[in-house]
Amino acid sequence: MAADRKVYLDNTATTAVLPEVVEAMLPYLRESYGNPQSLHSWGDAAREGVEKAREQVGKLINASPEEIIFTASGTEANNLAIKGLAQAQASNGKHIVVSAIEHFSVLHATRTLEKAGYEVTAVPVDKYGLVDPDEIVRSIRKDTILVSVMHANGEVGTIEPVAEIASKVKEAGVLFHTDAVASTGNIPVDVKALGIDALSLAGSQFYGPKGAAALWVRKGLRLIPLMDGGVQEGGRRPGTEDVPAIVGLGKAAEMAGGDMVSRTAKLTKLRDKLIGGLLGSVGHTILTGHPTQRLPHHASFCIEFIEGEAMLMLLSSQGIAVSSGSACTSRALKASHVLIAMGLPHEIAQGSLLYGLGLDNGQEDIDYVLEKLPPVVDRLRQMSPLYAKFVREGRG
Amino acid sequence: MAADRKVYLDNTATTAVLPEVVEAMLPYLRESYGNPQSLHSWGDAAREGVEKAREQVGKLINASPEEIIFTASGTEANNLAIKGLAQAQASNGKHIVVSAIEHFSVLHATRTLEKAGYEVTAVPVDKYGLVDPDEIVRSIRKDTILVSVMHANGEVGTIEPVAEIASKVKEAGVLFHTDAVASTGNIPVDVKALGIDALSLAGSQFYGPKGAAALWVRKGLRLIPLMDGGVQEGGRRPGTEDVPAIVGLGKAAEMAGGDMVSRTAKLTKLRDKLIGGLLGSVGHTILTGHPTQRLPHHASFCIEFIEGEAMLMLLSSQGIAVSSGSACTSRALKASHVLIAMGLPHEIAQGSLLYGLGLDNGQEDIDYVLEKLPPVVDRLRQMSPLYAKFVREGRG
Repeated sequence: MAADRKVYLDNTATTAVLPEVVEAMLPYLRESYGNPQSLHSWGDAAREGVEKAREQVGKLINASPEEIIFTASGTEANNLAIKGLAQAQASNGKHIVVSAIEHFSVLHATRTLEKAGYEVTAVPVDKYGLVDPDEIVRSIRKDTILVSVMHANGEVGTIEPVAEIASKVKEAGVLFHTDAVASTGNIPVDVKALGIDALSLAGSQFYGPKGAAALWVRKGLRLIPLMDGGVQEGGRRPGTEDVPAIVGLGKAAEMAGGDMVSRTAKLTKLRDKLIGGLLGSVGHTILTGHPTQRLPHHASFCIEFIEGEAMLMLLSSQGIAVSSGSACTSRALKASHVLIAMGLPHEIAQGSLLYGLGLDNGQEDIDYVLEKLPPVVDRLRQMSPLYAKFVREGRG
Repeated sequence: MAADRKVYLDNTATTAVLPEVVEAMLPYLRESYGNPQSLHSWGDAAREGVEKAREQVGKLINASPEEIIFTASGTEANNLAIKGLAQAQASNGKHIVVSAIEHFSVLHATRTLEKAGYEVTAVPVDKYGLVDPDEIVRSIRKDTILVSVMHANGEVGTIEPVAEIASKVKEAGVLFHTDAVASTGNIPVDVKALGIDALSLAGSQFYGPKGAAALWVRKGLRLIPLMDGGVQEGGRRPGTEDVPAIVGLGKAAEMAGGDMVSRTAKLTKLRDKLIGGLLGSVGHTILTGHPTQRLPHHASFCIEFIEGEAMLMLLSSQGIAVSSGSACTSRALKASHVLIAMGLPHEIAQGSLLYGLGLDNGQEDIDYVLEKLPPVVDRLRQMSPLYAKFVREGRG
């Protein structure tokens, strides 16, 4: 069945790469193919590309370029932050505090540390996915060495009160890392204003290429590398630099910084049209995450009496690309730990539907989704034993 | 000073990316930008790209595609192999055997393991950089869990007798990994014929892009991941896949496999012309590495009474790009651990000069180098106190 339209609404899984970003990368795939560590003109050209990108990324988050460590993914940045900072601080204690709704690259990294004798406290969130700063403070012990709370949650869009949390954590003399993979490039991120020690970001979330991400670590902070080898990234992340991807990340950072106001205005309008239209046309549906304190391009729902994956398939056959949670775990087909932590029952959490709006989207895409979704939901509900029971009991 | 010619002879640092490889990557930077984990057509297209690359890489090394784990660099592949296999085997012992001339991503990885209670034996090499299989066997103890010997050395070009070493190591019931980053795509690599358990390779060594490399691990072998997070690469290497780079690696692997005979013929001829010409025209120069059992594109020398870095700079001003050792440590400006392990004195090792020939090179490039190098060497030697002393003593 050919779809009437192709509508990509999965920009939380990954964005398209902007044409300007691809253009910036191409010279580094073609003529400037040198190794940045090489001591000749090919090496110089590659190194200049990497260092320019470091400045562009630094500028986006108000950090010094030399504080930026390039990695291959947000997952790697988070692993480097959690394991690298915890291991460097081990002589001061082995207790780590995270929120219950962190990405698995944070949560599972702490789980690995638990096997090495660390202790981890996962702080709960409220029904909007908000972390309570006071709850974080209460969980801090004498041996707490690191707190990590995400800047925004990619599954429900909620923006956390990171500046307030960080201020309290720093008052307690503990290091603070934030996973800003979902937020950086999409909303303002200023490491100085946030008052934090380390931050993860990924270009594939803001129209940069896959394969380039970064960990920002405040100057002077010790970090044990995940990998050993050469002198790249000051020895903190050895391995030949992925020059084209890093250059693309830099260009995407520059563009995101320059266009953020207009992008936000456009995306917020589309998002609010989608949220309003969907809640108005599909019954037994709830908006997940915070209603206002959320990413401008992010709309997430739980549609009752529906399996998220079945809905994805039917929407895909209509040309609509959405997701049901984190792409990193989509194939695990489990109810999201984020939704469960927010107190949603399993049978509702499984009807999760996540729209990530992008710069390519227009009003007509939203109209198309609002036209196609209700019959899909109806069709799936007609096959749902739970829905049949609900209707039988006269509550439909 | 404008150079008469631009000659890139640093293909051991990194190769150019073949135009066909860039072309294969472009659709994945442009239209097929989906996340391979996503359950819709954009995700499907990206996933198909990755899986095709997995088949292409598997075919190049005669391995099953599902045994390939994509990483971002050879360094990451080596770290994953050494740390991942050692940690998975820790209940059987904590002794690891390597050669003294491994890349730092292997050697320093074992050093990190030493801090965690592992013991490491670094087996010496002969003057050609050859590892003696019997020496490896003698170093194996009851608690040895892993042996890692490189397939070919990137600094001196020597190809190690890996099949023979592996056969003896496997006889002793110990796992065997080989770092084949310098060799894969440049000479035949067949994991079954080599009889090994794990192998690292990197696309940037055979005309693929930076940012994509792989670890092959024999089916059923346990491996502790370096990173935690999502389900990518079977959970053994989480993080959003760098689809364009992986697709490029696959295409480069396919092309390397198809063209290996003709490439080898061409490069060997150029290499031998360079070696013969250089040894004939520059006195007090030795070929480093094995004279015949070496990579077809690899020519490495020590030029006495010369600082390698000064030579690099002067050659660079003539448009010639070469290196003085591993790009991963070029900025450390230390004598190569490889040359030292081969018994070369520090003052000779510092005159290291390494040519990595590439598909773009022709006879005229070699002629140009053979014309430009002797005056550079003369000029540097005239500034060398060591050379002055040597001449004074009547040995010049």
